Amino acid sequence: MTKLLRSWVESANSESCPFPLNNLPHGVFSVAGSTPRCGTAIGGMVIDLHGLEEAGWLDFSGALKTGSWNAVMAAGRGEWARLRARLTDLLAEGASEATALAAHLVPMRDAQLHMPFSVTEYTDFYAGRHHAFNVGTMFRGAENALPPNWLHIPIGYNGRASSVVVSGTPIRRPHGQIKGRDDVAPRFGPSRRFDIELEMGAIVGQPSNGPISVAEAFDNIFGYVLLNDWSARDIQAWEYQPLGPFQAKAAATTIGPWVVTSAALEPFRVSTPVREVPLLPYLHEPGPMLYDIALEVGLTPEGGHETIISRTNYREMYYSAAQQLAHHTSCGCPMRVGDLLGSGTISGPEKTSRGSLLELSWGGKEPIEIAGGTRTFVEDGDTLVLRGRAIGDGYSIGFGDCAGKLLAARD
Amino acid sequence: MTKLLRSWVESANSESCPFPLNNLPHGVFSVAGSTPRCGTAIGGMVIDLHGLEEAGWLDFSGALKTGSWNAVMAAGRGEWARLRARLTDLLAEGASEATALAAHLVPMRDAQLHMPFSVTEYTDFYAGRHHAFNVGTMFRGAENALPPNWLHIPIGYNGRASSVVVSGTPIRRPHGQIKGRDDVAPRFGPSRRFDIELEMGAIVGQPSNGPISVAEAFDNIFGYVLLNDWSARDIQAWEYQPLGPFQAKAAATTIGPWVVTSAALEPFRVSTPVREVPLLPYLHEPGPMLYDIALEVGLTPEGGHETIISRTNYREMYYSAAQQLAHHTSCGCPMRVGDLLGSGTISGPEKTSRGSLLELSWGGKEPIEIAGGTRTFVEDGDTLVLRGRAIGDGYSIGFGDCAGKLLAARD
Repeated sequence: MTKLLRSWVESANSESCPFPLNNLPHGVFSVAGSTPRCGTAIGGMVIDLHGLEEAGWLDFSGALKTGSWNAVMAAGRGEWARLRARLTDLLAEGASEATALAAHLVPMRDAQLHMPFSVTEYTDFYAGRHHAFNVGTMFRGAENALPPNWLHIPIGYNGRASSVVVSGTPIRRPHGQIKGRDDVAPRFGPSRRFDIELEMGAIVGQPSNGPISVAEAFDNIFGYVLLNDWSARDIQAWEYQPLGPFQAKAAATTIGPWVVTSAALEPFRVSTPVREVPLLPYLHEPGPMLYDIALEVGLTPEGGHETIISRTNYREMYYSAAQQLAHHTSCGCPMRVGDLLGSGTISGPEKTSRGSLLELSWGGKEPIEIAGGTRTFVEDGDTLVLRGRAIGDGYSIGFGDCAGKLLAARD
Repeated sequence: MTKLLRSWVESANSESCPFPLNNLPHGVFSVAGSTPRCGTAIGGMVIDLHGLEEAGWLDFSGALKTGSWNAVMAAGRGEWARLRARLTDLLAEGASEATALAAHLVPMRDAQLHMPFSVTEYTDFYAGRHHAFNVGTMFRGAENALPPNWLHIPIGYNGRASSVVVSGTPIRRPHGQIKGRDDVAPRFGPSRRFDIELEMGAIVGQPSNGPISVAEAFDNIFGYVLLNDWSARDIQAWEYQPLGPFQAKAAATTIGPWVVTSAALEPFRVSTPVREVPLLPYLHEPGPMLYDIALEVGLTPEGGHETIISRTNYREMYYSAAQQLAHHTSCGCPMRVGDLLGSGTISGPEKTSRGSLLELSWGGKEPIEIAGGTRTFVEDGDTLVLRGRAIGDGYSIGFGDCAGKLLAARD
């Protein structure tokens, strides 16, 4: 396993720092109202890549000036690697450029983080074995929990790109049509079963125009973000037959501010779990394409203290993002730079490793304990934070907090 | 009812012409490899709006130079009306500018038509009462044909914007996972039940960021195109539970080349059919928001003759595009300029007014007669053409052919 790469930015060298030189996650930031531009986290600082380019330290044809990583993604894999190599050199311990470069560092606390890329289209999957089993058991009983296609297809549906927001954006409790089991007719009102879904988002960095293999799909993924697919369970229950979730999922999806590149995650590749039935050849993985990333969810009530309500790992997924992307193209569907693929809710086998409140509270029937109270679903004023960390030998790769606070519904 | 507005472009004055001065549909065209730019159809000609602007006849800040109508849409309703009024003046019979303007006309046969706008996100609905009943009857029997939510919600799902193509683009028969009822496991291969769906597409011309009323939604719709939502029925049958259609719908959706504006369709407004159960207030229409548009589908086998396989009318829809758009925003989902909303398949009450081959051939069990053969689903080499026409007093408003030819699957 790779060791810590030491940087002249001292705060990047501690074992607990989420942003060592090994990571170099990509974001978009501004300082005191400046124009948003591309930056990379290093230790407790953000390095201004547009500033580095203007000063002649980098040459990426102005792609770093734009307030999004889409232009760098579109420039291709060679450029992704060239940028990573160059930043690794410039920021390494002992680099002769250190003194000059330090002028382009901004303390993380002074940086406002924006959407790291422009989401072209958003697709959400349903690829967590434990989540699908838990939800299926609640709705159809344990014998019929998994739909018959589930072990053959990485089930997905198209989401709404316009509703994707960056960490820190407040979330408004949505209205919608809701019909209880015993109601004669639906009513229109605020969702009362508003939930989170702990997911990873994979970002398509290269376009394709026709079916691609799992290996090609793996190569086309630029990186990963944490993703919270906010879900109104009561709206979903009434609307989703026969064509799937729609307004239940379109109020908001929060992504983390830092894109951790596939290159940074390379040492953490793991295989998907053992197949329960053989997959069709177009979904075969030529190597390990999932990642060992420890995940947790914190819930903080308004004015209260945080409780970690779930701890799980991305390696629990039954399908990798590469398999999902290959399946996505199987009919010939064109993919574009900036397409975002949600993994599906990442639940583990334990009760405490479930990635949604629907599962944690078993459909609202078993409230969970939090500091100072209990929860079935998200309450107004609650802040939900997702965190992720890949743990190496003496260092770790973090994703930055993916946070959202729920505001009361509109009057 | 409005009468024919006469133009100095003589071909626009015939009763059978789809593009009289009353219409002025918006498209994007090029001639002999020139850069695509905005144009408007008038009679048998296209008038080059970028050329008009360069020559000083129009002033829309360069928005007409771009190869898409998105910039004009974004400019707002006032600009939509100003452009229509100005073109109506310039092209009217007796206009003093006629001789000078004639230099900017291009014969329709010399114009290559491109995507008229950039599709931001694509949503498809399921709002035709007869279609939903027919499909439901085939799958669940007549008693359970309509899902319980259908009369309350304009059911919709998110589609794939990257797969939307303009009329004339060849369509490749898709591969996908398919499992017959008696198969032990799915196979991966070409779809054998590839179908069309006759729809109208409504184009969102103004953004919204939160719930909007049906009246606001009506005002935000820039115009309409014909839309063929190609559908792989066998892929859909296996994949669509529980989260809806995905790869079955993502091979391609064809739209017509001409956007007929809401302004041009104003004389043809009609009410939606009588409600079978009361709608919730947020879906109430303050006036007629559907349109009387006669529709037909032609099928031409490779080297053969066309058969009209369906004749129906847009007024058969149970929900209008304005109701669909209002529902789309009900959870707070942001909408953006260029969002495309497919109406859902438009079937009428007669056997000959069904808008898909699935219905016309009753799931493949009752092949329909065409010139020189029969059809259950689309065969390789078939060209499918949708046509639409709103019929006024001595004139009609056409949409241009929405055509696509099916190519054999990849090897």
